[in-house]
Amino acid sequence: MFREHLKKELNNIKNSGLYRTLKVKDGKFIDFSSNDYLCLSKHPEILNAVKNGLRYGSGSTGSRLTSGNINHEKLEEKIAEFKETERALVYSSGYATNVGVISALCKKGDLILSDKLNHASIIDGCRLSRADVLIYEHCNISHLLNLIEENWRKYEEGNLFIITDGVFSMDGDVAPIKELKKIADEFNAVLIVDDAHGTGVLGNGKGTLKHFNIKPSDNIVQVGTLSKAVGGLGGFVCGVEEVIDYLINTSRSFIYSTALPPHVVEGCIKAFEIIEKGEVVKNLQNKINIANKIFKKYKYINCGHITPIFPFIFGEKTMSLAQHLIDNNIFCVGIRYPTVPKGSERIRVSINIGHKKEDFILLCEKINDFLIDDKK
Amino acid sequence: MFREHLKKELNNIKNSGLYRTLKVKDGKFIDFSSNDYLCLSKHPEILNAVKNGLRYGSGSTGSRLTSGNINHEKLEEKIAEFKETERALVYSSGYATNVGVISALCKKGDLILSDKLNHASIIDGCRLSRADVLIYEHCNISHLLNLIEENWRKYEEGNLFIITDGVFSMDGDVAPIKELKKIADEFNAVLIVDDAHGTGVLGNGKGTLKHFNIKPSDNIVQVGTLSKAVGGLGGFVCGVEEVIDYLINTSRSFIYSTALPPHVVEGCIKAFEIIEKGEVVKNLQNKINIANKIFKKYKYINCGHITPIFPFIFGEKTMSLAQHLIDNNIFCVGIRYPTVPKGSERIRVSINIGHKKEDFILLCEKINDFLIDDKK
Repeated sequence: MFREHLKKELNNIKNSGLYRTLKVKDGKFIDFSSNDYLCLSKHPEILNAVKNGLRYGSGSTGSRLTSGNINHEKLEEKIAEFKETERALVYSSGYATNVGVISALCKKGDLILSDKLNHASIIDGCRLSRADVLIYEHCNISHLLNLIEENWRKYEEGNLFIITDGVFSMDGDVAPIKELKKIADEFNAVLIVDDAHGTGVLGNGKGTLKHFNIKPSDNIVQVGTLSKAVGGLGGFVCGVEEVIDYLINTSRSFIYSTALPPHVVEGCIKAFEIIEKGEVVKNLQNKINIANKIFKKYKYINCGHITPIFPFIFGEKTMSLAQHLIDNNIFCVGIRYPTVPKGSERIRVSINIGHKKEDFILLCEKINDFLIDDKK
Repeated sequence: MFREHLKKELNNIKNSGLYRTLKVKDGKFIDFSSNDYLCLSKHPEILNAVKNGLRYGSGSTGSRLTSGNINHEKLEEKIAEFKETERALVYSSGYATNVGVISALCKKGDLILSDKLNHASIIDGCRLSRADVLIYEHCNISHLLNLIEENWRKYEEGNLFIITDGVFSMDGDVAPIKELKKIADEFNAVLIVDDAHGTGVLGNGKGTLKHFNIKPSDNIVQVGTLSKAVGGLGGFVCGVEEVIDYLINTSRSFIYSTALPPHVVEGCIKAFEIIEKGEVVKNLQNKINIANKIFKKYKYINCGHITPIFPFIFGEKTMSLAQHLIDNNIFCVGIRYPTVPKGSERIRVSINIGHKKEDFILLCEKINDFLIDDKK
């Protein structure tokens, strides 16, 4: 009977055109789908570091609090140094980090203000926290201020949190961190910034805060991931001493998860060393500039981007366009509802330092072909 | 101010004697803390498979639904074959699996019956699901039946779920799966079994269901982990076709997480091949038998165990005893509130196929020394 129930549910999803299946990239593709912005997942020094890390074994064998604490504190020191924070803590995924950090720091009786386009893991962390949650319009400072002024007096005993992506994953735009920090200071709030797509990209790779020249402080908590620009797996949080110690003691996705394999950890340490040197980040910024010019010329974007994420919004046509590109050996992923609102379905073009100018042009030409055929 | 708030909270934790810090195992230890029951994390064939898997790079570069779907379906086919189910799906951690599976399958209007000693990730999955949750006394079938009979008629429109660990992580005891399956059949309920500590251990390694000779069926969903007996990282779910397709379409920790690195996947495939051959599992059962005899002789347990987890319950003394063992080069982890109830603090002794009989005796002797000194 449960099987029949799921069959019905799946049919509903299929009928609304939203059915997802897994695709394998086999054969030779120009890949615009990956988050490997700095191509570090293919970097020989990192691959070597991972290989060497296998001297510890293929897994960590337990939670950080039992048998799994091996070389992880070395990576945490590296991240804290890189992010210029007092401390850092590593989780087994970015999703686990947001869920574990938010549900530990925010409590019943607290108020969370969350950007409307925040990542799913932030939304799930908020739900697990039992704090009250209000959603402010995307990057809309005056809406945020209104919500605080209307509601905050009811929460005298609680803490106030403002939570935002640093770089938004589906639009590639950047949160107004300067303004958010000012509001956080004014209302004695904690600002949590998920810099999953900002780390390795903005502010010489150090992230969105650095990009705006904002120094880490007592009321900022930064989240990041090891699986995008860093090229590995996992997530991290960084901030002041007390935040980290508190998370070690209370964060359930940290306490009740097996630690990352030590060889993954070794790879990530090497990745931060490479990012720190600056060359790969400069290279990426250079590629972003080139892409901006070409994508604007073809009118697939209308403003300049400072991140490697370019949403080409085509609405309903998106999924057949994505298939057309795959047929032409260009791997692009169509993003649809519920990941993005209906009507704003898009090809999420993410570029990396392995791309050439010609790749950007080819992408635009192939899209043009499709659109011309589509009009006929 | 937030920093001061956390300082106070941390002081409260410290004053109640529950403050957790990370320990590194450096130097030579006899290790009774690891979940690496089959010592597969050190198996040369697996380490080689991981090394070979690095040809794909150090990370998967994206979600399974975007750029990250590489060799993962090969592992899923292997798991489904091994578990004798129609399909399987891999997640980035065991925590993410339970959270993602339960919150996707169980909905507002459904009723979940959950064993009191279920793992934290099950509890968090239940909370995220918005279903109503009732807790039945640990492995207590008549309490479970009472709760269903008293409450189930109110949920005519919803689905009924019974969720249990296969092997309970802190006690090493086994859920009464036969009885639970019978109840699930009777009430048209879905039985979700988290076999994190059963996979690779019971039923020739195939898990708790196989141990009880229960065939996978439409109303059983099995969860497992790749980071304990399998020696890698990640989690999985297996069951009928529709469950897996539904999870691919709706499970948030699956959709919104970067896929496991392909080299980790290669290691896990090799691990299942080794487990399947049966020798390591037999070896473990042999070691469990030896440990049972010795631990009973020293009166640290009073009944026979069929899993490698032995709780030595010492209550308040536990943490100083754990330190005494570490001072004697035996790495054991003390487990305390809130992971286990107050009064049942314990040394969680987990054994593996690398242990010798003499290791078990040495452990008991060193505990004896401590207890005698403590009485003086």
